[in-house]
Parts: sequence; C-alpha cells; structure tokens
Amino acid sequence: MSNFGFTDLRLVNPYEVAFREARSAVGAGEVIGNAMEYTTLEEAVADCSLVIGTASLGHRELHHPLRRLEYGARLIRKHLASANAALLFGSEKYGLSNDDLSLCHWLLRIPTRAEHESMNLGQAVAVCLYELIRSPQAAKRDPKASKKAAARDLELLSGRLMETLLASGYINQRTAASTVQKVRRLVRRMDLNAQDADVWLGMLRQVLWKLRH
Amino acid sequence: MSNFGFTDLRLVNPYEVAFREARSAVGAGEVIGNAMEYTTLEEAVADCSLVIGTASLGHRELHHPLRRLEYGARLIRKHLASANAALLFGSEKYGLSNDDLSLCHWLLRIPTRAEHESMNLGQAVAVCLYELIRSPQAAKRDPKASKKAAARDLELLSGRLMETLLASGYINQRTAASTVQKVRRLVRRMDLNAQDADVWLGMLRQVLWKLRH
Repeated sequence: MSNFGFTDLRLVNPYEVAFREARSAVGAGEVIGNAMEYTTLEEAVADCSLVIGTASLGHRELHHPLRRLEYGARLIRKHLASANAALLFGSEKYGLSNDDLSLCHWLLRIPTRAEHESMNLGQAVAVCLYELIRSPQAAKRDPKASKKAAARDLELLSGRLMETLLASGYINQRTAASTVQKVRRLVRRMDLNAQDADVWLGMLRQVLWKLRH
Repeated sequence: MSNFGFTDLRLVNPYEVAFREARSAVGAGEVIGNAMEYTTLEEAVADCSLVIGTASLGHRELHHPLRRLEYGARLIRKHLASANAALLFGSEKYGLSNDDLSLCHWLLRIPTRAEHESMNLGQAVAVCLYELIRSPQAAKRDPKASKKAAARDLELLSGRLMETLLASGYINQRTAASTVQKVRRLVRRMDLNAQDADVWLGMLRQVLWKLRH
C-alpha cells in the first residue's frame, strides 16, 4: 500500500495478536500505524460510495459482474477522481463470504491462470494497487530513450573498423571492397546511442594506433 | 510465478537451509520443485538472449537505461514472442550488485512512490509478472457487461412504479402528472440490466396487488 501511495487501511476483526505485534514492530509504517479497526464490514465501508470485492472465477455462485483487473481498475480510477472507494480483500484461507460480497457493487478478479487462481494476500493487494496507479501513457513510449548515433558517426565508425580489420590482417586489400558493405551493416545493427558511438571511435583509434606502431 | 504461468525459476546461491525447506514443504508447487540452482549469475542466464535487472531510482550509479515497468514489459513481451529472457531480482536486503547489473541489457523499475521505493520481493515479482501477462485489450471494454434493460421494460417499470406510488398514497392523483417525468428519470438512473428490470417488475406487481387487496 505504501509503495503505491495508498494510506487508508481498514481491518475488520483482525486477529488481535498478529495485529498488535505488527503495529508495535520496529519499522511498522504509517499505514499500519494509522489502520482503523472495525467489528463489521458494514461500518468499515459506510463512507464509501463504491465497494469492490475481490474474487476468482472459481467462486461458485457469483451474483455480481466479475470484471478483470485491467478493466475494473479503470472504473475505480474514474470513481476515485471525485469520491472514495473500498477495495475488499478476504482472509487468505476463506476469501470474502457471500455476506461480504452482498455489500459490493461488483467484483474484481486478477487474471491468474485457471490452474492456480488463488493468490498470496500481500501479492494480490500489490498487483491490484499497481494496476490502479499504473500509467497507460508510460506504456506507450520510452521516456528514457537515449539519443541514437547520427549516420555521420556510424559511417565514421564503419571506416575506422575497416581500417582496424585491414591493419590487423583480418581482411586484406584485395577482398576489402566486398567487406565494406558487411561492416557497414554490422555497425548499423549495433543500434548505438551517440555516447557509445563516441566510445567505440575512441577505442578503435587507440587499437589502430597500436597496430600501426 | 505459478499464478501468472511462469515456470522457470533459477536461483543463484540460494540460502540452502531455506531452499531445502521450501522444496520439501507440503504443497511446494511445481515451480519450486523444478527450480534450478546455479553458483554464478553468468551460468544462470547463459541461454537467455535478453537479461533485465530490476532496480529503483534510488540506485546510485545506474549505467543502464532504466525503464518503467509499463513500457519495459512491452519490450520484454515482444522479445518473448521469439526468444527467452531472464528477469533478475536481487536479495531483499541488498538488491542486485553492480556486477549483476553489468550482465543486464537494461533495467526495469516498478513505479513505486519516491518516499517508499523498496518493495517486498514476492510482491515485486508478482507485479512484474502481472504486467507481463496483462492484456491491454481487456482494459478497453467490459467483456462481462450484462444486457441492459430495453426502453420498453424501463417504461413498463416506470408505469408500475407510478401505480404503486399512487396506490400507496405517496403521491396523489392531482399531483401525479408532475411526477411522471421524475419517476421516469429515477428509473433510467437505476441503469438496470434486463434481468434486474424483470425482478423489479415482479416485485412491484406483488406490492401493487397487496396494496389493492
């Protein structure tokens, strides 16, 4: 919850021993420190205008729309823009009861594979909250893409690599003509950024100098 | 891993006691049962044509492109269509070493908030693998949307609700005309599906019968 910026944890009848221990543990975060306790789910969600339960396909009698996380999170995000919502997780052993589910507007399921639907509670929470803060914009392009090397530098590098191969005897003058294009393509396939192209030019300059002296 | 259909777990120098216990535990899944052990990271990723490390913005000296999970997962998915890839997670305490990172093509980061970047290992794995199997198509529309009630049924329901309100004395014949539109709008705002509209019609029929007898 804290990783993804969610702060309002509400517990319904938590196991007292474990809860007291967690709260008093060294390094217990703000989320657990500020967690509220309730004796009924009705009270816990009383101020929420959207209540979403988590469930799996394996749940026998679902009387609610069951939405995949990818889509359901979109609806929750829209709602969160102007109001609050509760996301319910059941105990790891029993999940949410039918009584719990009857308080929900609809249900959310994480797209786990049919052969292994049931998830660890902490992991299920992490995945749901990640989807809520996930940015579709961020998925579209690489904001950190480094500047690619310009054609001029790639051509310079191809020439220097050719000289090096000649000086080292890897190719000889007679067959060099047929190799030029191969080396050019090889260099382009390296998909270098501007900085790495500079490094390669420097390395080959030194190698070439050493080969010739 | 098992939840999201990933089966190939490779461990580099796992803590032997914990690993042996996990492997022999009742209910240890296939993933842990088939996990391979290696003494160096080089061996563990030797057959992988893409090696991705996980890191956070807090990592001091990153010499790699650091991509947000939403975008990075797209690149990994593309690669996985025709080849294999390794996704590296460090120990929970120390993360990946600079030596580990130097074996990576690039790095991935989960978009946790700056004030709390470090994640629980199991949760970090769950979130990364969820993003890998996540379906952008599923995010676009509600595949489970139930059939909405037809205008005919909504008008039938509006009429029956009007009759019920009249029969119960909630409204009277003189003011009824001004209420018809309010009731119509109220019924449309219920956003009923076809089945619920039927249920409402049945409930009101019975209420009306009782009110009149």
